[in-house]
Amino acid sequence: MNKTRLEAFSDGVLAIIITIMVLEIKVPHGVEFVDLKPLFPKFLSYVLSFIYIGIYWNNHHYLIHGMSKVNGKILWANLHLLFWLSLVPVATGWMGEHNFAKASLTLYGIVLLFSSIAYFILQRIIIRSEGGNSILAKAIGGDFKGKISTVLYVVGIASSFYNEWIAGLAYLIVSFIWLIPDKRIEKVLVSKD
Amino acid sequence: MNKTRLEAFSDGVLAIIITIMVLEIKVPHGVEFVDLKPLFPKFLSYVLSFIYIGIYWNNHHYLIHGMSKVNGKILWANLHLLFWLSLVPVATGWMGEHNFAKASLTLYGIVLLFSSIAYFILQRIIIRSEGGNSILAKAIGGDFKGKISTVLYVVGIASSFYNEWIAGLAYLIVSFIWLIPDKRIEKVLVSKD
Amino acid sequence: MNKTRLEAFSDGVLAIIITIMVLEIKVPHGVEFVDLKPLFPKFLSYVLSFIYIGIYWNNHHYLIHGMSKVNGKILWANLHLLFWLSLVPVATGWMGEHNFAKASLTLYGIVLLFSSIAYFILQRIIIRSEGGNSILAKAIGGDFKGKISTVLYVVGIASSFYNEWIAGLAYLIVSFIWLIPDKRIEKVLVSKD
Amino acid sequence: MNKTRLEAFSDGVLAIIITIMVLEIKVPHGVEFVDLKPLFPKFLSYVLSFIYIGIYWNNHHYLIHGMSKVNGKILWANLHLLFWLSLVPVATGWMGEHNFAKASLTLYGIVLLFSSIAYFILQRIIIRSEGGNSILAKAIGGDFKGKISTVLYVVGIASSFYNEWIAGLAYLIVSFIWLIPDKRIEKVLVSKD
Repeated sequence: MNKTRLEAFSDGVLAIIITIMVLEIKVPHGVEFVDLKPLFPKFLSYVLSFIYIGIYWNNHHYLIHGMSKVNGKILWANLHLLFWLSLVPVATGWMGEHNFAKASLTLYGIVLLFSSIAYFILQRIIIRSEGGNSILAKAIGGDFKGKISTVLYVVGIASSFYNEWIAGLAYLIVSFIWLIPDKRIEKVLVSKD
Repeated sequence: MNKTRLEAFSDGVLAIIITIMVLEIKVPHGVEFVDLKPLFPKFLSYVLSFIYIGIYWNNHHYLIHGMSKVNGKILWANLHLLFWLSLVPVATGWMGEHNFAKASLTLYGIVLLFSSIAYFILQRIIIRSEGGNSILAKAIGGDFKGKISTVLYVVGIASSFYNEWIAGLAYLIVSFIWLIPDKRIEKVLVSKD
Repeated sequence: MNKTRLEAFSDGVLAIIITIMVLEIKVPHGVEFVDLKPLFPKFLSYVLSFIYIGIYWNNHHYLIHGMSKVNGKILWANLHLLFWLSLVPVATGWMGEHNFAKASLTLYGIVLLFSSIAYFILQRIIIRSEGGNSILAKAIGGDFKGKISTVLYVVGIASSFYNEWIAGLAYLIVSFIWLIPDKRIEKVLVSKD
Repeated sequence: MNKTRLEAFSDGVLAIIITIMVLEIKVPHGVEFVDLKPLFPKFLSYVLSFIYIGIYWNNHHYLIHGMSKVNGKILWANLHLLFWLSLVPVATGWMGEHNFAKASLTLYGIVLLFSSIAYFILQRIIIRSEGGNSILAKAIGGDFKGKISTVLYVVGIASSFYNEWIAGLAYLIVSFIWLIPDKRIEKVLVSKD
């Protein structure tokens, strides 16, 4: 079984998710610059989610690149990940519409948490299929970033009931952690080629 | 004729179908958790349809993978399948909007039934093109799952006039039947590679 | 220059065009079967346009398959075709919304006519690039179907001012002409492989 | 690391951007030709943005084609470009909705300016990765077109506060500059193959 279609389908879904989020930024009715003001929280939430989906696409890219064979379980674990990511636009829209209100930050955190769990499951299933001594298993290693992200999502969700700023900060920190390029994985995989 | 574009186009359409369904889950106007409540039936119907489209993508993946050559008939049989699947978002939206009302379950069943018929036709045309002794023909065999699904769709449609729970259960059972990985087909095709 | 991206981008755009048309079939507000009735003309216009986009995808598939090299002119002629096809959903939606009213049939015919002209231009540019004695040039030959389609579009547009049935019939005939598989082209191209 | 997925994902996003813009051209409520009149500025703005996205796709095609290796920085620079281009539909919709009003031309120019800066950054990062003596570096050379475009965008944005016609003209000139095929780059890259 080749992995081309798995990549193509995932790329398609991720491309659509990242782009339909922009549809939440509705064309303003007025024609003055001041009419753009209510779009600002929507724009901010769009930027954050764009970065998140970008991170997932990036990591997915490396993960699948390092994988040598596909099976039914991997196909479904991948669909499971895409399912949770497909809810990001709804959560983003709610957050932008209500100016980062507490409840919307809770929902956003929950969607991010489940997405990260789905990613973790996909990673586990691929590593099990590839073998514990595979290049991929070594490249991922202890998955420190994954673990710290989970902790931060839980902190974000819990704090969102009391303070929206702490929750937002938690999600922001996760995105920064992943934005910093993972030289190690890149090197291991490049050396393979 | 190569099959790359058939796969690419189908992947594109299926990726869009699976993702635009989420657009039915409109961003709620209120900002409390209670405002998410009306989204629950929409979410449930989205989950069900996501699994269905996932199953079709999965099976389509195997079917086309096992196919060696494309012709005009196959291209159109494939478009015919995509046509019926493209109606799934409308049926899903109706079902979610009206909390799984009887009529919406009938429509949903009809769309699923026609999709499965279209898939059956595509399968037949490909098998005829490949030859009755081809690996694909053997892998598909008596197509027991396909037959039992058709029966369940008809049961679901008929019962939807009287009871929405039986109908819903019938569609749920079909999805479970297909979610259980078809080890047999996978093995036959993998052994080919 | 390879043609993979030309195909991938065209497939993406065509997949989106064919799928967003279904968004015009809005989820009905009521929950009875009778509430589906106003959707019927929308459904019919969707079927017709789905077939049209399917035909274009099919022909585009053969045309690009028979092409050996890409250049800047071909890229733009291809974008020009996609531009006109991207207007099909708007024209389809108008036609479906107003039950195939005269003016909507005129607009639909105009969009189809410009699409066919754009396809003709793309075909010319590719043939010129490939050479008059190329397999593709021979396969396309006198392009009888293309010529008769243009005549029928003009007939449809002209008659739409007086009678919507004649116009609709003209567009329907064109779709039938193209649905009949073009054995000749298929053979010539297959023999090449 | 191969560049196939970078191309596939970018093609997906660009295909969606170019196609969802047409959703701004809402189906008119009336059924007379006169009801199409308010769509005219929307249509015009759609044409302009379609050409712009087409130009970006075209140049992106050449740029990535001339690139030999991918790294994390390139992936993010590419996502950064796609981010700004994803805002084109919103700016286009605002411009079309309000008949090319001054403020909407300012916003449109800003989005175009940031897109061009993002493209410039992507180009720089790729050239640095490929090396200053690479074929790509030579093909791009002094990037005269890029520089003149930036100047014209700034002129357009500045003049949009006083006169919408000058601003519109500036953006139109940029599109013409890029529409004229860049024979030089094409030749250099073709000679490589």
